[in-house]
Amino acid sequence: MSAPFILVNLKTYKEGMGNRAHQIATAAQLVSRETGALIGIAPGYIDLHPLCHHFAVPVYAQHVDGCAPGANTGHVTVDAIKLAGAAGSLINHSERRLTLADIESSVRALQSQKLSSVICSNNEMTSAGAAALEPDYVAIEPPELIGSGISVSKANPDIIRRSVSIVQKVNPKVKVLTGAGIQSGECVKIAVDLGTDGVLLASSVVKAVDPVTILRELVSKL
Amino acid sequence: MSAPFILVNLKTYKEGMGNRAHQIATAAQLVSRETGALIGIAPGYIDLHPLCHHFAVPVYAQHVDGCAPGANTGHVTVDAIKLAGAAGSLINHSERRLTLADIESSVRALQSQKLSSVICSNNEMTSAGAAALEPDYVAIEPPELIGSGISVSKANPDIIRRSVSIVQKVNPKVKVLTGAGIQSGECVKIAVDLGTDGVLLASSVVKAVDPVTILRELVSKL
Amino acid sequence: MSAPFILVNLKTYKEGMGNRAHQIATAAQLVSRETGALIGIAPGYIDLHPLCHHFAVPVYAQHVDGCAPGANTGHVTVDAIKLAGAAGSLINHSERRLTLADIESSVRALQSQKLSSVICSNNEMTSAGAAALEPDYVAIEPPELIGSGISVSKANPDIIRRSVSIVQKVNPKVKVLTGAGIQSGECVKIAVDLGTDGVLLASSVVKAVDPVTILRELVSKL
Amino acid sequence: MSAPFILVNLKTYKEGMGNRAHQIATAAQLVSRETGALIGIAPGYIDLHPLCHHFAVPVYAQHVDGCAPGANTGHVTVDAIKLAGAAGSLINHSERRLTLADIESSVRALQSQKLSSVICSNNEMTSAGAAALEPDYVAIEPPELIGSGISVSKANPDIIRRSVSIVQKVNPKVKVLTGAGIQSGECVKIAVDLGTDGVLLASSVVKAVDPVTILRELVSKL
Repeated sequence: MSAPFILVNLKTYKEGMGNRAHQIATAAQLVSRETGALIGIAPGYIDLHPLCHHFAVPVYAQHVDGCAPGANTGHVTVDAIKLAGAAGSLINHSERRLTLADIESSVRALQSQKLSSVICSNNEMTSAGAAALEPDYVAIEPPELIGSGISVSKANPDIIRRSVSIVQKVNPKVKVLTGAGIQSGECVKIAVDLGTDGVLLASSVVKAVDPVTILRELVSKL
Repeated sequence: MSAPFILVNLKTYKEGMGNRAHQIATAAQLVSRETGALIGIAPGYIDLHPLCHHFAVPVYAQHVDGCAPGANTGHVTVDAIKLAGAAGSLINHSERRLTLADIESSVRALQSQKLSSVICSNNEMTSAGAAALEPDYVAIEPPELIGSGISVSKANPDIIRRSVSIVQKVNPKVKVLTGAGIQSGECVKIAVDLGTDGVLLASSVVKAVDPVTILRELVSKL
Repeated sequence: MSAPFILVNLKTYKEGMGNRAHQIATAAQLVSRETGALIGIAPGYIDLHPLCHHFAVPVYAQHVDGCAPGANTGHVTVDAIKLAGAAGSLINHSERRLTLADIESSVRALQSQKLSSVICSNNEMTSAGAAALEPDYVAIEPPELIGSGISVSKANPDIIRRSVSIVQKVNPKVKVLTGAGIQSGECVKIAVDLGTDGVLLASSVVKAVDPVTILRELVSKL
Repeated sequence: MSAPFILVNLKTYKEGMGNRAHQIATAAQLVSRETGALIGIAPGYIDLHPLCHHFAVPVYAQHVDGCAPGANTGHVTVDAIKLAGAAGSLINHSERRLTLADIESSVRALQSQKLSSVICSNNEMTSAGAAALEPDYVAIEPPELIGSGISVSKANPDIIRRSVSIVQKVNPKVKVLTGAGIQSGECVKIAVDLGTDGVLLASSVVKAVDPVTILRELVSKL
């Protein structure tokens, strides 16, 4: 099995933009090198290109539109993020929900450019629906726990277990991430022990005074 | 195997409202009795209650919201269509796309009231995604053929074949309808021969001068 | 000046459907007759037609689509609510926000059928934007107070005053309703004294054990 | 009166990304210097920062979210485009429609950072609604003419005239741009003669073999 994937979503936090995004990327690169952990970051679009070019960590878009290049204003195509150097994209985050048709077209567009796709889901059944679209990852995040400070690993291990099981059944090639409230090495370890391939997290890293310390803590029990 | 299901979506056509909706329901009931075919109709909300109470045919809503009763303005809950006497609802029609989370909550809400769910999809992969949500039916409608007068049965039998196959693989209990351009008994026969459980259609019936004639034609080759 | 308008939004509350919607309509009709107040109700679509035909109170849809009759699934056209007997429709309620283009097309479609339009807005600037579209009413509802039990009349009289003033400036023919937390005759009186033409309210009437009592209370200070 | 504003929307055209975006910006800067015309560009987010820093032309985002920095995934805040060096943003383009509340919050967020706001509208009444929100510009683009190759200046001068007039009435400080099918110096001249302050255009520049030639042509009759 490959190393668990720790994907840090910088959202539009003030503490995740510009210089501060560079600082988090620096921390991700450092802790990856120290520990062998696979740590990626998902910055805003403006920071995407510079981070891709200055750091040897996987950089993801937070959202991508599946539409082809053309007459689409305010959209972000897979071509655009590929050109920027992105490794992949989140799709259907709870703060940016898409239609089923748009989720699918985003996955196809990413695959056609050999980029990685992470579909966010909200419960075990939508995890199954997402897995049937053949993304690289499904990231299950119970919406009520996002940003709550309560870890899904501890509050609802059953939803993780059932999501892993149903995703396995629908498509065993699809990996599972878990998110919502992840904030310690113990949360990450529980998530991995429950059968997931990593975690999606945001505020606990982005708002940390020292991103190196929290990233070391997150991978400490692996 | 049960009789194929012919589901007539009245959309918001002028020719599908009020008295005219009653006329189409009358035709559906007549042809069902003559032939043993299972013919349902999906009228607008205003006609839902009267049609449910005056006709012995399955009446579907065109859309339903998965939210619980409460502070939702302009929404239509499963409770409301259940009280009206509906047999079920279309979900995620190409003219009313929903997020993955909303599609799933609508299916769950319908199931909790023992109503039937028909998720519309646009290609074979979204059909797989829809099937993983465990609805009663997935209705595959290539958007470019909807209302085109070109039958999906003839123009793209492969998409039907592949959708039936992938839905079977994801969840063999889910039935498949096909839609888009269906207008003759031959279209319906091809769709059924390709392994689907019926058809979803609209304009060819709603805009027909005589709904009885077209409905008899549609079921004539079964 | 005409009598203030009390518009009761039944939302999708369990206590506002079916028989219970009839009970609230009965109360609205009774209190209107007793007091000369103008009391309207906005039920769900399923109850729209029966309430329009059984009661002599203005019945509003909670939402309407501005599209013409045709190939629109799950939409509710102005034609449909006109046929049902509606007096008008809410547009852009905070629980059913629309694009600027769709708000405008809904107002135009209602006007073309001589039905009344009530655009909901969330602050004084969007009230100005709404007024420029020339609806019959703009209903200003600060979202943070909706369903809060805290009356906008008392918590934020300034937003009402400024909204009345800016709407007057943009288009003096447009009337202003205020909503959010309205629950007593005093709230209604303050709103009217601040220059509005009535109130939009929901839970305080819909969830009342006795709708007659609360409606009498609401109009008691006028 | 200030020089008319020529704003070139690069959309997600292949011919408007990366090196090619730089080429168009180079052309815009050159023709601005030659002629004194005010020529701006609206590239994709990935190109926003580099273009802002390498060129002395106003660079606009194609869309911006009015939300404050924080837990918003896949959104682009005004803070982010300000940090990138943008001069302002398009809002509510026909390919990225927003709710009235979101349009208004975007204008306010841009104003709070002293950035310019261009609200797109689709007819004269929505132009009035947009003007009431007090943006810097309203850009009226009849949707049926966008990308049509038929110039709004010639096909429908009345909609421009009426939009200018109604915007003047609602708020005389708001400037008007016209868009849709603009492709020649004559189109631009007509638009300006009808009282507008410039044009919003896309494909005629973005897809031109030589952006310098077409930009010179566009400003040639001013």
